[in-house]
Amino acid sequence: MPREFTHLLTPEEARALFQKAFTPRPRGTETVPLLEAFDRVLAADIVADMDLPPFDRSTVDGYAIRAADAGSLEEPLTVVGEVHMGELPSFSLGPREAARIPTGGALPPGADAVVMQEHVRLLEGGRIRLTRAVGAWENVIRRGEDVQRGETVLRAGTRLRPQEVALLAGLGRTEVQVYLAPRVAVIVTGDEIVPPDQVPRPGQIRDMNTYSLTGLIRGLGAVPQPYGIVVDEMDVLLDVLRQASRTSDLILVSGGSSVGTRDVVAEAFTALGATIVVHGVSIKPGKPTILAIQEGKPLVGLPGHPVSAMVVFDVFVRELLEGMLGIARRKGFGKEVRARLARSLGPAKEREEHVRVALEERGGEIWAVPIIGKSGVITTMVKADGIVVVPVGGAVLAEGTEVDVRLFD
Amino acid sequence: MPREFTHLLTPEEARALFQKAFTPRPRGTETVPLLEAFDRVLAADIVADMDLPPFDRSTVDGYAIRAADAGSLEEPLTVVGEVHMGELPSFSLGPREAARIPTGGALPPGADAVVMQEHVRLLEGGRIRLTRAVGAWENVIRRGEDVQRGETVLRAGTRLRPQEVALLAGLGRTEVQVYLAPRVAVIVTGDEIVPPDQVPRPGQIRDMNTYSLTGLIRGLGAVPQPYGIVVDEMDVLLDVLRQASRTSDLILVSGGSSVGTRDVVAEAFTALGATIVVHGVSIKPGKPTILAIQEGKPLVGLPGHPVSAMVVFDVFVRELLEGMLGIARRKGFGKEVRARLARSLGPAKEREEHVRVALEERGGEIWAVPIIGKSGVITTMVKADGIVVVPVGGAVLAEGTEVDVRLFD
Repeated sequence: MPREFTHLLTPEEARALFQKAFTPRPRGTETVPLLEAFDRVLAADIVADMDLPPFDRSTVDGYAIRAADAGSLEEPLTVVGEVHMGELPSFSLGPREAARIPTGGALPPGADAVVMQEHVRLLEGGRIRLTRAVGAWENVIRRGEDVQRGETVLRAGTRLRPQEVALLAGLGRTEVQVYLAPRVAVIVTGDEIVPPDQVPRPGQIRDMNTYSLTGLIRGLGAVPQPYGIVVDEMDVLLDVLRQASRTSDLILVSGGSSVGTRDVVAEAFTALGATIVVHGVSIKPGKPTILAIQEGKPLVGLPGHPVSAMVVFDVFVRELLEGMLGIARRKGFGKEVRARLARSLGPAKEREEHVRVALEERGGEIWAVPIIGKSGVITTMVKADGIVVVPVGGAVLAEGTEVDVRLFD
Repeated sequence: MPREFTHLLTPEEARALFQKAFTPRPRGTETVPLLEAFDRVLAADIVADMDLPPFDRSTVDGYAIRAADAGSLEEPLTVVGEVHMGELPSFSLGPREAARIPTGGALPPGADAVVMQEHVRLLEGGRIRLTRAVGAWENVIRRGEDVQRGETVLRAGTRLRPQEVALLAGLGRTEVQVYLAPRVAVIVTGDEIVPPDQVPRPGQIRDMNTYSLTGLIRGLGAVPQPYGIVVDEMDVLLDVLRQASRTSDLILVSGGSSVGTRDVVAEAFTALGATIVVHGVSIKPGKPTILAIQEGKPLVGLPGHPVSAMVVFDVFVRELLEGMLGIARRKGFGKEVRARLARSLGPAKEREEHVRVALEERGGEIWAVPIIGKSGVITTMVKADGIVVVPVGGAVLAEGTEVDVRLFD
């Protein structure tokens, strides 16, 4: 039978202890074509080697003029040319001269403003009269207004959204250096577990954790390496761990919930040469969590219950992976919402409780409806939109209390 | 010069008009292996053909007993056997009998509760005494407690998260029918636009919209088909549109902001046989938006300015694509956050304004800092976390006003 967890660390203690023992970082970099760079993490600062835009550009269809000439609207201007898209004008503007210009066109030398065509009256003899004044540089994007040459426009550690990739394209980058995506081994142990394509015999149950963990890993942008189901025997597990430690950057082992499994995992980690930093956390679900390190490589033992495995991933593995992905300065907006509890929760006496909730809008307010069910019941996760944490030692969270809901991705 | 937009529809009017003309739906279905099903959209309801779990299971390590025998803690029980993982016990429990059982083990016939090993004292002669009472079915996940045979566990239109895929695995599905991902052509027009690998000559600028739009399309789970840059000539554009209409389900054309471009796009749509439903929307940025239909296939003309193109994608294309992806009953929690304006905005006189904002936490409150810049300035999108909408005809939104910020994905 597994050893008792006599001294359980709190989730915060466990995290702090593990952070001291291991600093997650990317294992290297690679260069990818720009169209493959979405959601990847920049491995180096990007310094602009040009101004963007590279010339003063009109933002409207109209007439390029000298702003000083807009002082008196009475006196007409003479149209001396037309700017064509994609070309630098071959002429320049003198006093009281104007040139037709399209949106995006380059201002001719001498011009310092554009008047919209709606604010121009055409006179005979190729002349125009303005119906409204314009100030200097009005309706113009100035050279370097978006980006100035020599400016650091993006920092290493930035996850590339569509707009960052667009900016890189605008600066002429056709490929970009990004951090390598960490490879994460997923090992499922348990004598009662069979793969989905097998019909379980009485007493057996199909593997779900390979799938939930693979999805969570992919969702973060890391590379899952599913190793399948391993029987609850030290030697067999140790062999698979040895394989995984050669090709993975992080190893997850979900315990099969059988008698002694948790010890087998801890023993196998130790036999592999790993140092067990945390074994047992006062979190519900998730008590049998193991955090270990072998030659700078983290190993995590997760509970076998499908809900518990997902909660422990969220609490311990997510942060680890974000570090290994190289993500810096991440803003968390939108990862949580405030909601009112539709049913009282707690008190949590011994372990911090992570309660699944479904969100509902009622009369303009968001309500969090706790989904009650055991940690082996995957449909509670299917019904849920996120998690509410009930801290240890607090009072009951009464119905109607405002709580933060950590949303699933 | 492009025609004046004398009658601009509001974004709501434009959306309503287009919804009447076109109902987005998936173009078909395909079957994918389970490990490839993450983020895909279910094309058919899933009905369970088995109970989950398929047998009464212990949730703890301990002893299976008959709950009735826990009434008197004084009298010992006789241990008559041990349950092994992955096997149905070959024995059954009579009165005052118990069996060792691991977490996840199948209850022997006759048993209706499990007592945790911590609450059992071992006596000599293979007997035990309970130190705490247990109720019927305590520490047991009952057969069918997660899913009952015949139950509809997932509905068509569900986007598959890790937990949904795990549930499918638990039910023995090794592949799953999902909707085909819509293919979206991205065409960029403009005589001044050159690809990122070209050094722009004076007056030229590099293509950014291919990249931002491709990223937005991929982010939603659709398949981008970038067609590159097309010169501003009707015949050439029409040829590319004909190609795209054979292989794409939705066509996006971002105007190159050159004189007459917007008309060339509208003319080319018409020449292709499309009906133009919307041409010009009172939105800032995004006025020259075109929504059209050709033989049940939507075509969207987006502005050439990089910020405008992204805003119009967000306001009109996102919803369209979600319909084509087959996503039903989508919960929007976490897509918006409430924040206080760090600077006054508006009033919006003629067009609904979509203002980029960066979010900051100050003293426990979220503040939205407007990023001021022209719609050609992509770095304003790089600095921003989301969009605040300033409606037409309203008052100034004063500093400190609470607003909803639509977050970027």
